[in-house]
Amino acid sequence: MDIKPLSRHNLSVNSLIFKAIIKLLIKLPTKNRKIYRLISNCKQMIETNDKIFIFDTTLRDGEQVPGCQLNTVEKIEVAKALEELGVDVIEAGFPVSSPGDFNSVVDISKAVTWPVICALTRAVENDIKVAAEALKYAKHKRIHTGIGTSDYHIKYKFNSTREDILERAVACVKFAKSFVEDVQFYAEDAGRTDNEYLARVVEAVIKAGATVVNIPDTTGYCLPWEFGEKIRYLMENVKGIDKITIACHCHNDLGMATANTMAALRNGARQAEVTINGIGERAGNTSLEEVVMTCRSHKELHLESNINTTHLYGISRMVSSLMNMPVQPNKAIVGRNAFAHSSGIHQDGVLKNRESYEIIDPKEVGVDENSILLTARSGRAALKHRLHVLGIDMDKDALDKAYESFLKLADRKKEINDDDIMMLAGQHHASKRRIKLAFLQVTSGVGIHSVASVGLDIAGEKFEACSTGNGPVDAAINAIKQIIHRKMLLKEFLIQAINKGSNDVGKVHMTVEYEGNSYYGFSANTDIVAASAEAFIDAINKFVR
Amino acid sequence: MDIKPLSRHNLSVNSLIFKAIIKLLIKLPTKNRKIYRLISNCKQMIETNDKIFIFDTTLRDGEQVPGCQLNTVEKIEVAKALEELGVDVIEAGFPVSSPGDFNSVVDISKAVTWPVICALTRAVENDIKVAAEALKYAKHKRIHTGIGTSDYHIKYKFNSTREDILERAVACVKFAKSFVEDVQFYAEDAGRTDNEYLARVVEAVIKAGATVVNIPDTTGYCLPWEFGEKIRYLMENVKGIDKITIACHCHNDLGMATANTMAALRNGARQAEVTINGIGERAGNTSLEEVVMTCRSHKELHLESNINTTHLYGISRMVSSLMNMPVQPNKAIVGRNAFAHSSGIHQDGVLKNRESYEIIDPKEVGVDENSILLTARSGRAALKHRLHVLGIDMDKDALDKAYESFLKLADRKKEINDDDIMMLAGQHHASKRRIKLAFLQVTSGVGIHSVASVGLDIAGEKFEACSTGNGPVDAAINAIKQIIHRKMLLKEFLIQAINKGSNDVGKVHMTVEYEGNSYYGFSANTDIVAASAEAFIDAINKFVR
Repeated sequence: MDIKPLSRHNLSVNSLIFKAIIKLLIKLPTKNRKIYRLISNCKQMIETNDKIFIFDTTLRDGEQVPGCQLNTVEKIEVAKALEELGVDVIEAGFPVSSPGDFNSVVDISKAVTWPVICALTRAVENDIKVAAEALKYAKHKRIHTGIGTSDYHIKYKFNSTREDILERAVACVKFAKSFVEDVQFYAEDAGRTDNEYLARVVEAVIKAGATVVNIPDTTGYCLPWEFGEKIRYLMENVKGIDKITIACHCHNDLGMATANTMAALRNGARQAEVTINGIGERAGNTSLEEVVMTCRSHKELHLESNINTTHLYGISRMVSSLMNMPVQPNKAIVGRNAFAHSSGIHQDGVLKNRESYEIIDPKEVGVDENSILLTARSGRAALKHRLHVLGIDMDKDALDKAYESFLKLADRKKEINDDDIMMLAGQHHASKRRIKLAFLQVTSGVGIHSVASVGLDIAGEKFEACSTGNGPVDAAINAIKQIIHRKMLLKEFLIQAINKGSNDVGKVHMTVEYEGNSYYGFSANTDIVAASAEAFIDAINKFVR
Repeated sequence: MDIKPLSRHNLSVNSLIFKAIIKLLIKLPTKNRKIYRLISNCKQMIETNDKIFIFDTTLRDGEQVPGCQLNTVEKIEVAKALEELGVDVIEAGFPVSSPGDFNSVVDISKAVTWPVICALTRAVENDIKVAAEALKYAKHKRIHTGIGTSDYHIKYKFNSTREDILERAVACVKFAKSFVEDVQFYAEDAGRTDNEYLARVVEAVIKAGATVVNIPDTTGYCLPWEFGEKIRYLMENVKGIDKITIACHCHNDLGMATANTMAALRNGARQAEVTINGIGERAGNTSLEEVVMTCRSHKELHLESNINTTHLYGISRMVSSLMNMPVQPNKAIVGRNAFAHSSGIHQDGVLKNRESYEIIDPKEVGVDENSILLTARSGRAALKHRLHVLGIDMDKDALDKAYESFLKLADRKKEINDDDIMMLAGQHHASKRRIKLAFLQVTSGVGIHSVASVGLDIAGEKFEACSTGNGPVDAAINAIKQIIHRKMLLKEFLIQAINKGSNDVGKVHMTVEYEGNSYYGFSANTDIVAASAEAFIDAINKFVR
């Protein structure tokens, strides 16, 4: 028995039915071949229905942001990380736009194996030819072509008519199809395109051979119920739509990108177009991590991606660092504060049951618990772990007592640092063993070399060193490294100074890797160079004892 | 004739009807008193139906973020700005939690006139007494009390039963009511509370005298359709709900806060609880600017707030600066890039019609056009304005030509700086007149004073100065100010360095106010002190000619 593909807008219900059938079948006493085939068919249907494809456009739509341009080596680094993360499609560039974009598509095609490599074009023959050429080395290739379908675009951009645009859409898909099997069509500004006309366009490009049709909310203007309704309208009114994949590509101008994407997936779209950290033009694109973790937290939606979520935090920081775009502390899923808790009123709840406030376990998205600030909302396990890192292992009773004092202290003091914890653990004198910055002098500028002289106080003994560097911070860090001889790697280093004047406090957040663990360092100072040196020493103090 | 209040979940339809009636009435030939009264009644109904109340909790839920604590003077500064912005309610603190919070509520109560001042409490008599005491000086006062209603909270936090929690909810509202008329109740974790039980709680607290009932999605777990459905369920099943205001308070853990808030408003909620820039615990709260601008961009929702949107950008920067929480560049509405465009594929569209890509005019939210980066997406008006700022006024033909060359250049170069524009304008030699940094030497550190020596080249002439400062950046800026004697105000100053190592490039963005206009300065350098001096000079070059 073969099961025919079902219409897609009832996907979750179908999956439920199939799951129920499987449950019944495996309970049957006789397990002959036919039943096995039936089970496998059902499983396949669930997979087809529930599987969502993650189409990452960090390297195309993300990279268009002023100041975010990457060179080819950096692009390959990101592409390989995306492959490891498990994305299904990498949009690698817009080859006709520049020789740089062309070469990036070529080099990314060579560098990755599993994901489909996708190249963007306009509905222009030369664009498509050039894209096909750039995709020559891709193991799985897709051309992404399309045209604006909203009346704004038809009238103001193309000075054309709906019929003419429809013809051009069909022609570009057919032309692309002469180069590759996998052709994705985008109906630019679909968010503001009349549904009836949009359905006609989608039907026509499916007939012309499109394997994926992308419905972008180009201006980020749609509301979730509208956008979901649009997808549902297409699912119900376009002939042949169950044979192809509908994609959604949302922008965040009104803060709705993730919600619009989820609304589209719920109504039958099966490809989400996203970027790491939600970077992209203007207010950015849909953020990959938000969509993936929403699907995962809402099992009732029956939407599953191939993403290895434990890589999310790492790739977030990699992209942020390469593109020089800081992740805001309160960014959902990957922000520094996403898993920090502080409100006193919430404390009891977390103390008694983690689930009462937190829905995602930090480990699930690859956040190193060492890097989470301890606050009144931190659990016993977090305290135990931090004590262990500080070289203190306690039995249950001692830990219970320490945790009680910890909560009392945390109620008064929003952030608990390692000195506080040493005190709690009765290690009042331990802080004397810590490394302290005795003095620092840095000279830097324009037209001169940066040089730093530093003095450290380690367990009462004085050490001094000096070094040059590429800028004053580098010089100071180098000088400290001359005294502390360890194989330390600066994994994350964020300077934030945001002021009305030039004499306000700057903050430095730092993550230092040492023997496979990450250690967080922090300092605030009106002198950002001094703050950087202090944060480095703060991190070092967590493992050098 | 009097018109009875209507059930609220059909609000937009009702408003449409009333608007239609008004249109008819004012066309009637005889305009007697009765008709005037009818019109005024209809207007009032529209106002009641469409008006949404903005409840700002920047100073309570926002201020709980580790590192964001403000002192009382700063809190008053923010509260006054919120009043000017036009928020309806300011949640000023949680008085029982600390003497600091208590005093803040007292001082904010004294400082502002129009908004309702709200103080948070638990369902505990002493909390409520203390809150009432703190609100003594408020012209309009509200106590916000409540209790957790989800099974997680009832079971793990309170080790209690649904019936007991219901009684405590009623008791706390009654107790609060003995102090103030305006009592808001929150059903903590309402997002995960069973709808039927939630409806019972809401009905009971309304009966007990609550004037506003807040339905928070405490964990940020809800999806928009679920949350909207929840509000609709309450609107349809709670007796007396049409006499009070339903509020929503959403968190952004899955990136859904704004969408959930809009879904709630669409289904009958009329108070949105928000913070400036969406700051708040973990992934933050709903962002004020996103909700207000979504309502404004979607007139078909018939939701109107009292917010003066032109203040949005200014208050965003004020809160960011006071709380030392940078606004990410791609933040919706108020991010630095929210109105920057660069993608070549979009260029034609914008050139021909601004509306084809942009849905919000930057001016509408108070973004100074001087501070927008010029890219291929910038319009002719933006170029004309920037030329004017640079002292060049062109006639239409010359501007047309310059704009053509500008677009060609912008296609190759993502960000167009003022030197490029001078070149475009045929002012090849003008750049010689610019102020250049000839040399800079800064010494700073720990245990020593910061000192800077600077040399500027102004139109070929050399100038030198030196100064001390509060940190190396301050010293360098002070030295430059000694040479350039103008009344300049540093309005915004953002240093961003985000690296894997300590020797990567740091970026400095700066806005300098001079004679009522804002000028943007930028620089990138491995030396962040040098980058700061260069960005300052970049900004100065835009007005000192």
